[in-house]
Amino acid sequence: MTYKKLAQDFLDTANVSIGDTVIIEKENVSYQGILLDRSGDSDDEYIVLKLDNGYNIGINIVNAKISLIEGGDKPQINYDNINITKDDEKEDILIISTGGTVSSIIDYKTGAVHPVFTAEDLLKSNPELLDLANINVKALYNILSENMKPEYWVETGKSIAKEIESGVDGVVVAHGTDTMHYTSAALSFMLSSPVPVVLTGAQRSSDRPSSDANINLINSVGAAKSDISEITVCMHSTLDDGYCDLHKGTKVRKMHTSRRDTFRSIDNEPIAKFKKGQISSINTNSYIRRNEKELDLNNKIESKVALIKTFPGITNELIEYHIDKGFKGLLIEGTGLGHLPDYMINSIERANEEEIAIVMTSQCIYGSINMNVYSTGRKLQNAGVISGYDMTPETAYVKLAWALGQSENLKEVKTIIETNIAGEINKKSSIKHFLN
Amino acid sequence: MTYKKLAQDFLDTANVSIGDTVIIEKENVSYQGILLDRSGDSDDEYIVLKLDNGYNIGINIVNAKISLIEGGDKPQINYDNINITKDDEKEDILIISTGGTVSSIIDYKTGAVHPVFTAEDLLKSNPELLDLANINVKALYNILSENMKPEYWVETGKSIAKEIESGVDGVVVAHGTDTMHYTSAALSFMLSSPVPVVLTGAQRSSDRPSSDANINLINSVGAAKSDISEITVCMHSTLDDGYCDLHKGTKVRKMHTSRRDTFRSIDNEPIAKFKKGQISSINTNSYIRRNEKELDLNNKIESKVALIKTFPGITNELIEYHIDKGFKGLLIEGTGLGHLPDYMINSIERANEEEIAIVMTSQCIYGSINMNVYSTGRKLQNAGVISGYDMTPETAYVKLAWALGQSENLKEVKTIIETNIAGEINKKSSIKHFLN
Repeated sequence: MTYKKLAQDFLDTANVSIGDTVIIEKENVSYQGILLDRSGDSDDEYIVLKLDNGYNIGINIVNAKISLIEGGDKPQINYDNINITKDDEKEDILIISTGGTVSSIIDYKTGAVHPVFTAEDLLKSNPELLDLANINVKALYNILSENMKPEYWVETGKSIAKEIESGVDGVVVAHGTDTMHYTSAALSFMLSSPVPVVLTGAQRSSDRPSSDANINLINSVGAAKSDISEITVCMHSTLDDGYCDLHKGTKVRKMHTSRRDTFRSIDNEPIAKFKKGQISSINTNSYIRRNEKELDLNNKIESKVALIKTFPGITNELIEYHIDKGFKGLLIEGTGLGHLPDYMINSIERANEEEIAIVMTSQCIYGSINMNVYSTGRKLQNAGVISGYDMTPETAYVKLAWALGQSENLKEVKTIIETNIAGEINKKSSIKHFLN
Repeated sequence: MTYKKLAQDFLDTANVSIGDTVIIEKENVSYQGILLDRSGDSDDEYIVLKLDNGYNIGINIVNAKISLIEGGDKPQINYDNINITKDDEKEDILIISTGGTVSSIIDYKTGAVHPVFTAEDLLKSNPELLDLANINVKALYNILSENMKPEYWVETGKSIAKEIESGVDGVVVAHGTDTMHYTSAALSFMLSSPVPVVLTGAQRSSDRPSSDANINLINSVGAAKSDISEITVCMHSTLDDGYCDLHKGTKVRKMHTSRRDTFRSIDNEPIAKFKKGQISSINTNSYIRRNEKELDLNNKIESKVALIKTFPGITNELIEYHIDKGFKGLLIEGTGLGHLPDYMINSIERANEEEIAIVMTSQCIYGSINMNVYSTGRKLQNAGVISGYDMTPETAYVKLAWALGQSENLKEVKTIIETNIAGEINKKSSIKHFLN
């Protein structure tokens, strides 16, 4: 694709073409960057620049002036020969693509975003990754993450373990943002890894102005090369700079529908900050180092687990329905410190008698469950409800499904839930990490 | 109750008694405040001071020194004659008590908190309220808020309307914090009020050190006297000062299980800040003024409404169950911009065919629904799903129950849901109000 009509006329005024570094001046603001190609049936009044900070922005050319700074090397990479020569000095990083916005493009006819990129396309649109590491790409799925299922976690875990076994120095998982934190929690419980496994995504697709795909991928490859050998999520940390936060995979949550800095550590601080593929700061020294753990995969999951959020007006029948349907685990998103209405305790007792594991978390999102403070909490504990402590409802749901995959014995499941396995429980107060 | 053994011996060293202003010096820190009585079977190594900032703190007397600053007026109020003479210069404020921690005391035997105060007790433990206004108290319920039901919202609305009709200048509703934001949303939709209606509560009960009950009540009475004639929530705004934020009743949420500053405006800023019962700052001028609206009560609610939070592994059967059970409305807490797994669309279509209203919100909590961006969202809209825009899931659940109380016609319900009624929808970007 190339620019058309007005946009092409505008570019011709300065004799510039795709790949050149240009300055555009408009209304007393000037933008310097590399002229990018425009995808699809886009409006011919806009051109797209990649700024130095890595953002792509769209600029309306009406009343704008363009001038050439430096001709670009065109094409910057040979698209027909993406598997460049392996550099033995560099780390081998594998990118596993599962779909999502980071590997999507916009459909300019409908305005909707579709998952259509292959893993190779992903690399082609982010050629800078090749400067950081020897990159291999593998397309595992091509789905938007609202369609992720526990069985896909199982397959993703298996796939990652296989690649680690074959010797990669780090893995990046490109994933849709909607349920990335569920998948990162699942991989955290399933996988003990000697190398970093970093999940990343994008809130805006690569071909859109101000996409975050490029920055997130670059910093994720940087994190996958680092010594932080945990299952993490690496995403944009603030609205307006090139930093990414590296979050513990069990303590992170998507907290905004549209902002690029949507992923936030809950009751915790991010492990580190990355910029331009390098660590720029580290918040804590308590992380697992490269080769500290041996590779181990334990990816059995029980699928008969439900997440139930309580509300004023909820009925007992909902619990009874899940008991009758043969569910093995119920993750409750209660109110406050971990409460349900009094009238539900009978059904909770019945679930407990039928050996169903019931775990309590809070719809407050932040803070820890404490069923010792109020009479309701004490009744729930007596009825067999297990504390989710400071786990997010999403992490606790995943952990419950995983724990039920490890044991059919309710006492053992309770012990697994109450034991910190992958940084998901911090029994000491983490009260200061609120809304950060 | 009075102090015992060690504590009484300690107090005797300076010949002080309850109500006196004292200084206690311990480990180079000194605390000045009014000596309070100690409740229940408490440890005899602690005494309780009310500091100038309104907090009660417990101080261990080991290695501490006490001295008398000023004798107190004892008793400060006549507990047998709480209905003091009406002062015509002051506003008439009604406190309606529904229960919750703000009207609870701790059971020192079990450590659990029980709702046991009457509304009169509430006033007795917060005598400063009488300096601010003519206070009348009314005990409507005595329940912890996890036990609130939509039918109690209906009664609370009726009760408030009756009191406003009889001429009070403002109403404070003392409420448990767990579901206070559900009730504040319900009252916002039900009630058009010429005077302020302020909900408040406490994270720590009145008789515990560092209770927030007193500060919250004082500032709520201040808010009920003010010109901000909305349905609001008035609660502690930061951990360590005497400020309260006044939140719009439809845009507020309990965001932490235990912190006192747990209530936060979502995608919005608080209307104002209060300190010592006075406005200390106003963030916006767009609020409803006193007497701007006439009293109107519209408290019909449909109770067959469910809140369903999606998760990877959710099944169609859950939707089918609610259809078969005759539910009239489903509030979906989807992922990201408002998504459900693809495979659920069939059931959503069936629900729509059966005239069930389905409203989409996001488990991100912050940000707006936008079902135009991704293909999944467009399919859901085609299946009849109504956008909840930037409503919190809790507010949207309440609004759906209320909208179904207003009309049985699905088109009309859709129009009500999509129309801003009580500040709950802000279609313009409110993206900057994130985690504040």
